[in-house]
Amino acid sequence: MRRVAVVGVGCTKVGELWDKSLKDLAVESATKALDDAGVERVDFVYVGNAYSQILQSQGNLGSFIVDSLGFNGTPSISIEAADSSGSLAFHEAYKAVKLGWANYVLVVGVEKMSDSTPEEVAKALMACEDQDYVAFTGITQAGLHALVLRLYMERFRIKHEDVAMFTVKAHKNALNNPYAQFKNPLSVEDVLKSPILADPLRLLEYTTIADGSAALILCPLEEAKKITDKPVVEVLGSASATDKFYLPERIDSLTFNATVEAAKKAFQEAKISIDKVDFIETHDNSTIMGVISIEDLGFAEKGRGTTFIVEEKIPINTMGGSKGRGHPIGATGVYQLVETVWQLRGEAGKNQVKDAKIGLTHTLTGIGNLAAVNILGCL
Amino acid sequence: MRRVAVVGVGCTKVGELWDKSLKDLAVESATKALDDAGVERVDFVYVGNAYSQILQSQGNLGSFIVDSLGFNGTPSISIEAADSSGSLAFHEAYKAVKLGWANYVLVVGVEKMSDSTPEEVAKALMACEDQDYVAFTGITQAGLHALVLRLYMERFRIKHEDVAMFTVKAHKNALNNPYAQFKNPLSVEDVLKSPILADPLRLLEYTTIADGSAALILCPLEEAKKITDKPVVEVLGSASATDKFYLPERIDSLTFNATVEAAKKAFQEAKISIDKVDFIETHDNSTIMGVISIEDLGFAEKGRGTTFIVEEKIPINTMGGSKGRGHPIGATGVYQLVETVWQLRGEAGKNQVKDAKIGLTHTLTGIGNLAAVNILGCL
Repeated sequence: MRRVAVVGVGCTKVGELWDKSLKDLAVESATKALDDAGVERVDFVYVGNAYSQILQSQGNLGSFIVDSLGFNGTPSISIEAADSSGSLAFHEAYKAVKLGWANYVLVVGVEKMSDSTPEEVAKALMACEDQDYVAFTGITQAGLHALVLRLYMERFRIKHEDVAMFTVKAHKNALNNPYAQFKNPLSVEDVLKSPILADPLRLLEYTTIADGSAALILCPLEEAKKITDKPVVEVLGSASATDKFYLPERIDSLTFNATVEAAKKAFQEAKISIDKVDFIETHDNSTIMGVISIEDLGFAEKGRGTTFIVEEKIPINTMGGSKGRGHPIGATGVYQLVETVWQLRGEAGKNQVKDAKIGLTHTLTGIGNLAAVNILGCL
Repeated sequence: MRRVAVVGVGCTKVGELWDKSLKDLAVESATKALDDAGVERVDFVYVGNAYSQILQSQGNLGSFIVDSLGFNGTPSISIEAADSSGSLAFHEAYKAVKLGWANYVLVVGVEKMSDSTPEEVAKALMACEDQDYVAFTGITQAGLHALVLRLYMERFRIKHEDVAMFTVKAHKNALNNPYAQFKNPLSVEDVLKSPILADPLRLLEYTTIADGSAALILCPLEEAKKITDKPVVEVLGSASATDKFYLPERIDSLTFNATVEAAKKAFQEAKISIDKVDFIETHDNSTIMGVISIEDLGFAEKGRGTTFIVEEKIPINTMGGSKGRGHPIGATGVYQLVETVWQLRGEAGKNQVKDAKIGLTHTLTGIGNLAAVNILGCL
């Protein structure tokens, strides 16, 4: 099996991009990634998208995006798993290159949400939960997160202030990300004084409606060394796992086993221990999901995630994460990977992590029924 | 690279199954395939589905179906490409086993259409075309097929009667398929006297609303020989390709290059010539698409597809195809593969193709912007 490199990356700004369509976004990020790699054609295109069928009535994104790029003929596959759509598209692309099925593969994550009403988006966000047994109750994603947040604060006697620090750090990091949706520093007080979304979850603890697209090019490591002068970033491990679909069916509502399993497998494949990781780009569509994810990934003990964040043990979501950079759902997994490549190449600007050698990305779908973990390195 | 076998198959009846949900259908077919293989767990689940996000508001089908099967933890990926969703799910699963990433992989194709109104379904069927430049005109899939049918009859001076033969043969074959949606023999006269859907396309030339699910288990060939006494069916070739997204942009509206390219690559991989193929399960969501597909696959010269059908040169759509068996969109590609396995194992009952050694399956998305071809053999 071959070693695999990320040889080109690109992304659009994240935000309410009224003048850009789904197609415009995908073409912009893909073109940047192709230019960055110095590659003109690819063997395969993997697309990650969560909601274009619901929000734009547009399906069949594989062929759609191939055509938009003028790559007609090239095989393409579109993958959906809500927040993990981009990560899983990357995972399939990684396998295809690693195992010698394809040489150059383009991965595009894309989402267009701002043309839809907040009600339409709220409904779309529930598509990743069971319609017959969960969504039918009328609960929203924010409502589910609020349940978890309340239980977490009660069980571990954690102050809301400490959880809210996640947003503060996210907005701080986003300040130096030219592609970020939010450029406003926030205090803990700002977060806790913001309107209640679903008690106790506050507006500024939750991600917003966003458009955006991120893309990258994968190829064999040996090939990458030949075609680029930039530091070559290697994919060391990539895995995903599922969990019980319904939150109440799990043994513990505060541990997302999909994350635990995916991380275990990714570390096994990468053959590294967790202390070698220099920074994390983790799932944080709400503050509490960020906190729990850090614990489930193994960076903090259960109930100690907030301490890890407050004490800044290692850099987390260096470009702002989903809260600061923005969360175009199906694209987020690819944004994380693009940002990881920037860090490993030393191109992360003011937020550069010093001597960054290994980075980890993590996405979680819905209220934890699927997770994907990727480990990248530049050794 | 390892040789890959289909070691278990299963499917539900196709039809308007009012008492069965999306989940019920997926579990039924998957359980049958697992039982057929004698396998209790798998390493990975690939799901093919086209419209659950639009028709049921249900996304994230990978994790959803894994949970429904009690396989919690198992990684899973859901793939969408309209009519080719099931074929592409199979393609990714095939690669995963071939290249040694997974040993036992479950592929589930599933679609639930009958709970929606005909208007909702008609809109969903257009999701695979460009919303901004094609769907917005108000044209339906049937309308697009009608344009192609008219051009085909005019250019090649083909009688509508000869095209309509496709339906007649499909319904004849479906009579002996216990899982088929339609069990009524039809004459050419019946087809041509049926109401006009979009001039000149008649109602009985087009597929209908259907629910259904088909599943299969893949594993390494050597492993399959150990665990089953049934004839072992091998995957010899699997490929997909895309084409210009818009029909009018193509050089020829009567040749679907996605099919031509995918077939070329699948035959190359299988290292066999076309004359070795004993039967075809080809795309036929309308009569004219069936006729053109046979030509594009290389079984007949351009303009001679109807002759091929009328003269029954080799068996086509032996279990009724999309018209007779029914067309639960995202599941159809897997149904074709299940039926191919039945033929190759000698389990196809009254429609058994004598001495069937090699079968080919083919799906086409929308008006031809993506195609997938698989070649299976029992040598």
